Amino acid sequence: MLRSLPQLTAGRLADGREIFWFDSDLPKGSAETDIGSPGQPRDVTDRRHLPPTATTSERRWDPILREWVTVASHRQTRTFLPADDDCPLCPSTDERLTEIPGGPYEVVVFENRFPSFSTRATVPDDGVTLDASLYIRAEGHGRCEVIVFSDDHSATFATLSPERVQLVIEAWAARTEALNCLPETEQVFCFENRGTEIGVTLSHPHGQIYAYPVVTSRTQVMLESARRHQLTTGRNLFADVLASERHDGRRVVAANEHWTAFVPAAARWPFEIHLYPHRQVPDLPATSDVEREALGAIYVELLRRLDGVYGLEMPYIAAWHQAPSRADRELAYLHLQLFSILRAPAKVKALAGSESGMGMFINDIAPERAADMLRAVSL
Amino acid sequence: MLRSLPQLTAGRLADGREIFWFDSDLPKGSAETDIGSPGQPRDVTDRRHLPPTATTSERRWDPILREWVTVASHRQTRTFLPADDDCPLCPSTDERLTEIPGGPYEVVVFENRFPSFSTRATVPDDGVTLDASLYIRAEGHGRCEVIVFSDDHSATFATLSPERVQLVIEAWAARTEALNCLPETEQVFCFENRGTEIGVTLSHPHGQIYAYPVVTSRTQVMLESARRHQLTTGRNLFADVLASERHDGRRVVAANEHWTAFVPAAARWPFEIHLYPHRQVPDLPATSDVEREALGAIYVELLRRLDGVYGLEMPYIAAWHQAPSRADRELAYLHLQLFSILRAPAKVKALAGSESGMGMFINDIAPERAADMLRAVSL
Repeated sequence: MLRSLPQLTAGRLADGREIFWFDSDLPKGSAETDIGSPGQPRDVTDRRHLPPTATTSERRWDPILREWVTVASHRQTRTFLPADDDCPLCPSTDERLTEIPGGPYEVVVFENRFPSFSTRATVPDDGVTLDASLYIRAEGHGRCEVIVFSDDHSATFATLSPERVQLVIEAWAARTEALNCLPETEQVFCFENRGTEIGVTLSHPHGQIYAYPVVTSRTQVMLESARRHQLTTGRNLFADVLASERHDGRRVVAANEHWTAFVPAAARWPFEIHLYPHRQVPDLPATSDVEREALGAIYVELLRRLDGVYGLEMPYIAAWHQAPSRADRELAYLHLQLFSILRAPAKVKALAGSESGMGMFINDIAPERAADMLRAVSL
Repeated sequence: MLRSLPQLTAGRLADGREIFWFDSDLPKGSAETDIGSPGQPRDVTDRRHLPPTATTSERRWDPILREWVTVASHRQTRTFLPADDDCPLCPSTDERLTEIPGGPYEVVVFENRFPSFSTRATVPDDGVTLDASLYIRAEGHGRCEVIVFSDDHSATFATLSPERVQLVIEAWAARTEALNCLPETEQVFCFENRGTEIGVTLSHPHGQIYAYPVVTSRTQVMLESARRHQLTTGRNLFADVLASERHDGRRVVAANEHWTAFVPAAARWPFEIHLYPHRQVPDLPATSDVEREALGAIYVELLRRLDGVYGLEMPYIAAWHQAPSRADRELAYLHLQLFSILRAPAKVKALAGSESGMGMFINDIAPERAADMLRAVSL
């Protein structure tokens, strides 16, 4: 399959938020849809009358754990598990206008109406003053985008066509590149939460893309580890971890010429998989055409292996660890952290006292056994 | 109320695990129970025939996040939400022998039959060898104890009598002191997980006490923050945070002569409360008699305020942050972290991609508003 560049159409929703359509240039399957033909402009007019939103979002510095916490109190009223016929991510029709104007679509990205971060965020006018000798309070600048994988409400990422998966990867890379250029952005995070067990409030297949105004605390710890490793060994920590897993093989779940997926030796979650490209790159935009093509197949394979372990749609979090927008890009190493919170059918691995209170994870499933179970799934 | 020392009875369960009864020396309410009178020895014979358990538990060093992860795969088969009439924490009767021999009791502590940490833990004999240039693999030494707050299956901590709450506090302090003396212990953690939403597998009112073989990563971060603050200001970080909250008052939820409870300015959870003694002490054993008495009343008040916010039994985690057993005891400052994962009735604040993947918490409820809601509860 020769990869071709997606067509990008940009528009604005009724309240001014940006929206982007990513269309493959393949011939459309059905002539009855009003998806524009290749090269034809899309109708991107949002016919709703949406009141403008005011995003009051702030970040606060916690001096005890030395990390930022975001407070986004306007999100408390966000859409919560609407009925299937009231889904805001389904295509707009003449009868019902949704978040996505213009009829059927392939992949769409738009700014979240209830964002945790926004370039327009303001600190609430609540009279609260924090003790400046301990705390910092700042606007929750940044951006939160929704990425919709399909206009089919009942689809899942694991059932997308290979072409569609490629389009999603192209959209992730394009949005990462664009958001890294925003002055408010320090790190871009592409992720998918799947399953109500994880708190997903919309069942339509979608993910999210966050542009954080800071380098997240997890990434800071990882990069500090890499810095120390570099100083003492002269090598890249993530590359050494990948080489070690490939050499050992015991925990490798899937691999192809450009990517290897393994259960980490110190996995925190019952089913946790890390997927690395063989070549050290900072982020998705830095991957090559052949790497992106090879990624699509293995990514979907991993999702299907997860679903296959217990023969059910596994609740999961798929989190792309990318380099910060500006800092430490040579230390970072793009990888996916994919994990399920289910330890057995109907048994969720909850983060209880030890994990949430003390940061000590207790995993009930040995990483080697999890790798066995994931490998044993017939696809 | 004059505090009196609890009576301690020690025994062993059929498979060799230790068990301790903590009895008040107050006259018992009912002569029909077979609770021994003050000074009378308890019958502590476990009449079951229990096979000995083998605890294969290990900890693995994650070189990327620089923290230990525990793998305790034998726990996967632990008791999961048994029927009420099959509860292993109810008192033994002639008809049914449970984990707790000897009839009615007040407060009982015993070693968990499915522990994540044990002084007898061994690394599984699975042939797995981790790359020594990156990983460390060690026995999951330590100890996991269950603390049962009442023999009434349907009780909750918030409904315990003041005398019973005192007894629980005495038991926490006594077990912390004893476990700190084990050579395997680096930190003792007393906590309660309440509610199936948090993964509680037994509904009988109980908590847990962990003796960790390492100082947990959360505590290490906190102590490092305190060390830096001490160097730059000469003062204790936690004392400064407490003084700042008491001075401001905006987020204070409850207070008495010896303790103050407040929603932290950078709260991660919808309803999170930190409770500090006014005097800097490293752990519960270091509290004075009057401090323990004052603790009981405010602790129960906080639980009732949590339950009152939405008029339902709030799922919560109550986590006691205590000093390590040996290190940095002068930097640490005992405090309770009490938080609910419910952001609204039937809406759980799940740790999704941003929190679990990146360590960036997004809180939907402003700390000041949470404090208002908690204060507004009529008790």
